[in-house]
Amino acid sequence: MSAEEAAALINNDDVIGFSGFTAAGCPKAITSALAQRAEKEHAKGKPFKVGIFTGASTGDSIDGVLARAHAIKFRSPYQSNKDLREALNTHDAHYFDLHLSELQQYLRYGFLPKPRIAILEASGITDDGKVYLTSAVGIAPTVARLADVVFIELNHYHPQALAGIHDIYEPADPPLRREIPVYSPEDRIGTPYIQVDPAKIAGIVETNLPNEIGAFTPSDEVTNQIGRNVADFLSSEIKSGRIPAAFLPIQSGVGNVANAVLGAMGSNPDIPAFQVYTEVIQDAVIGLMKQNRVTFASGCSLTLSAPVLEDVYANLDCYKQKILLRPQEISNSPEVARRLGLISINTALEADIFGNINSTHVMGTKMMNGIGGSGDFCRNAYLSVFTAPSTAKGGKISAIVPMVSHLDHSEHSVKILVTEQGVADLRGLAPIQRAESIIENCVAPEYKDILRKYLLLGQKGHTPQNMAAALSFHDTFNKTGDMRNVDLNKYTP
Amino acid sequence: MSAEEAAALINNDDVIGFSGFTAAGCPKAITSALAQRAEKEHAKGKPFKVGIFTGASTGDSIDGVLARAHAIKFRSPYQSNKDLREALNTHDAHYFDLHLSELQQYLRYGFLPKPRIAILEASGITDDGKVYLTSAVGIAPTVARLADVVFIELNHYHPQALAGIHDIYEPADPPLRREIPVYSPEDRIGTPYIQVDPAKIAGIVETNLPNEIGAFTPSDEVTNQIGRNVADFLSSEIKSGRIPAAFLPIQSGVGNVANAVLGAMGSNPDIPAFQVYTEVIQDAVIGLMKQNRVTFASGCSLTLSAPVLEDVYANLDCYKQKILLRPQEISNSPEVARRLGLISINTALEADIFGNINSTHVMGTKMMNGIGGSGDFCRNAYLSVFTAPSTAKGGKISAIVPMVSHLDHSEHSVKILVTEQGVADLRGLAPIQRAESIIENCVAPEYKDILRKYLLLGQKGHTPQNMAAALSFHDTFNKTGDMRNVDLNKYTP
Repeated sequence: MSAEEAAALINNDDVIGFSGFTAAGCPKAITSALAQRAEKEHAKGKPFKVGIFTGASTGDSIDGVLARAHAIKFRSPYQSNKDLREALNTHDAHYFDLHLSELQQYLRYGFLPKPRIAILEASGITDDGKVYLTSAVGIAPTVARLADVVFIELNHYHPQALAGIHDIYEPADPPLRREIPVYSPEDRIGTPYIQVDPAKIAGIVETNLPNEIGAFTPSDEVTNQIGRNVADFLSSEIKSGRIPAAFLPIQSGVGNVANAVLGAMGSNPDIPAFQVYTEVIQDAVIGLMKQNRVTFASGCSLTLSAPVLEDVYANLDCYKQKILLRPQEISNSPEVARRLGLISINTALEADIFGNINSTHVMGTKMMNGIGGSGDFCRNAYLSVFTAPSTAKGGKISAIVPMVSHLDHSEHSVKILVTEQGVADLRGLAPIQRAESIIENCVAPEYKDILRKYLLLGQKGHTPQNMAAALSFHDTFNKTGDMRNVDLNKYTP
Repeated sequence: MSAEEAAALINNDDVIGFSGFTAAGCPKAITSALAQRAEKEHAKGKPFKVGIFTGASTGDSIDGVLARAHAIKFRSPYQSNKDLREALNTHDAHYFDLHLSELQQYLRYGFLPKPRIAILEASGITDDGKVYLTSAVGIAPTVARLADVVFIELNHYHPQALAGIHDIYEPADPPLRREIPVYSPEDRIGTPYIQVDPAKIAGIVETNLPNEIGAFTPSDEVTNQIGRNVADFLSSEIKSGRIPAAFLPIQSGVGNVANAVLGAMGSNPDIPAFQVYTEVIQDAVIGLMKQNRVTFASGCSLTLSAPVLEDVYANLDCYKQKILLRPQEISNSPEVARRLGLISINTALEADIFGNINSTHVMGTKMMNGIGGSGDFCRNAYLSVFTAPSTAKGGKISAIVPMVSHLDHSEHSVKILVTEQGVADLRGLAPIQRAESIIENCVAPEYKDILRKYLLLGQKGHTPQNMAAALSFHDTFNKTGDMRNVDLNKYTP
């Protein structure tokens, strides 16, 4: 079947669930054809929009083409596409963000619209409906089971030998659910394929298309210093005995700060070789595997640049012993994260002096990407670390403010805050003590006195906030383009 | 040993861990003697303060007497005592709040100061150190094991026949932790006693003292309407098939709204008899047991008024088949909450139009009680419901504001919001849709237009907040005593 023939079987108002997690493992051909179809329908004056559930962000061939075609009615969960971001910030598409571990169960519970259609990218398929995925899993097992109609994009870019890298497991729903029997990152609990009822497979589209994964921003002196601060802190925790000497599995977020952190941990001789239990396996993890600094990685996706993915594919026999891809309700499972005792390291867009984190909203209003898995991990981690450069836009924005303009992770999910300035250890501190530690250790020099002055404005109380001034940094930035212009003299305690 | 002799063995700067959860199961005698000792030391010009870890709130004989004696250096986690509240809001005592399920593991991990002393209230003790607790468990097993010195208050008010109602289980720490093997509220996984090394038991103080549990505020027309709204909503979810027909275990918060909700569920014929998996077993649960509307209750405490507790004690053979008390890391376990699929119903102090919840801070600054178990439950529930009266102080405060002044539970942990006005079902809604639903269904009439006007002020974006006006309701209340005086005309979009 051609992509166009498949797209012709999708209707206005349909709900579609996709395989993939980040741009890895996402279908590409049918959605590109669907976007063209939507544009033709719109040209005829007819409505054409679909609801979309994905694992996380996608490549441009889902979110980009459909957003530009104004063909997205609603979209969940995480996204990172420029054009989709524009669409959801202008309410052209309704976007509902959620913790990535929760999407599969909410689809099963009937809390969200049922996907009539599933589109899966596969590296192989058998006559009896065994579907072998490509470089990610995401929500694929659940949408394949719930959907009435399944399309397969059989992408020959991915080798059939990938079979075996996936571990497909879907828990029963309450009241019949049992434990998720993962006790170590390498534990296999499911099957290497998704079993799909062959009668539901409406078409197979053959493709040969690479993942649409761009290069990460390279690390710089600021991110490298953050990485060293994290690595030094973790090695001191091992020395103190607060982290077991054999270390614990690492969960690490996505992007250049996360890459710098992994790099610094890899080169720190006081940190033993470690396992990874995370959602996104990035280039840095493969690099550390080559150096025997990472011994195993469990994730939901291989979000690797093309050269690194091709290297993995050229040595699959070896890497299949060291890498395992799971559905996101397992890779991000609160139960498993807490049991394994993950050291969780995630990046903040903004923090406040009391230790709350904004991961998603620029100046409290514009959605950047979404909450992703950060909440699944930080809440349930053995130790939760958040990182951020202390300033942005050349100092015009302080990443640390009196009150976050949007709150994704509360003070209780944030144990350690790290900037290039230093490390604040917030464990066991009252709010006023946390504020003092964060201002002293993490805030950029030009903002320290302003934030100390803010603390004096606080209404007397456990958390000394001032309701008139709490968001004054953001209001000042919106009005003048520079938080340093904030005038705290106009407020009274 | 007398209480005074025990108190004499406690030093300035000691850290003490207590049994109990709410005023149930807390020691009373040694701390009363300790407060007198602290006052005497202070009169001599000597410092005397101790650090305190409890299960949750306590009776006046811990938090009250020690706060009034200025003898608390730090205190964690939940509290609800008037004098302690005053102390922590004025920073006389440092208070760090946390999710109740996390305290035991953070004590074991060494993230918090180690309790040198444990004081346990017991209904029985054997020569080889088997300690049978009274009407709650809390953090008792962990502090009994970590402490160097253990004192027992053997309280003859509680019958020895209580033995068997407790299920004491402490998980191993990562990387050795296994699943918590609770698959149903009635599953027993541990022992009926705490095993304490007899060599550590420094003294036994015999007492005969009732729990210091005050009466709950009675329900009124507003709380009864909230209760009916919750019960009607849940019964419609059962009819729709989104909640299994056999229903799921209920977690319910503490207080008069929670009592009204349980009462309404009990009298709704479309809701089947149900099990309870919660932290605090209140009077309403026992009442529903008598009517065979609650078939089993697993909790951390029997927080019952004296007549109801005495009735339970008079019929222990029967109630021990239907009630089980667990440590709080099990009663509040995220793993178990998600597996069992709890219907979680908790009370908000304040909500915002985007579905975020403030459970703790009055006007963003003054700590009321603490986050308690609400975060453990709402994040991991099958379905999370928050309730609140739509206004407070005769309408001078709207419980629903543009932005919560303190955020404890984010939009992602809040699926259903219920006031006496009605029910907002937030599942699958984008922020702007949530705002419209909450204003329409939950907000008090006199605040609807003000909040609609606020939405128009929102900076264009996914979550249309206005950084200048977001906290204007609170600022107006602080300055004029009535949120209805807020003037949104002075802000620009």
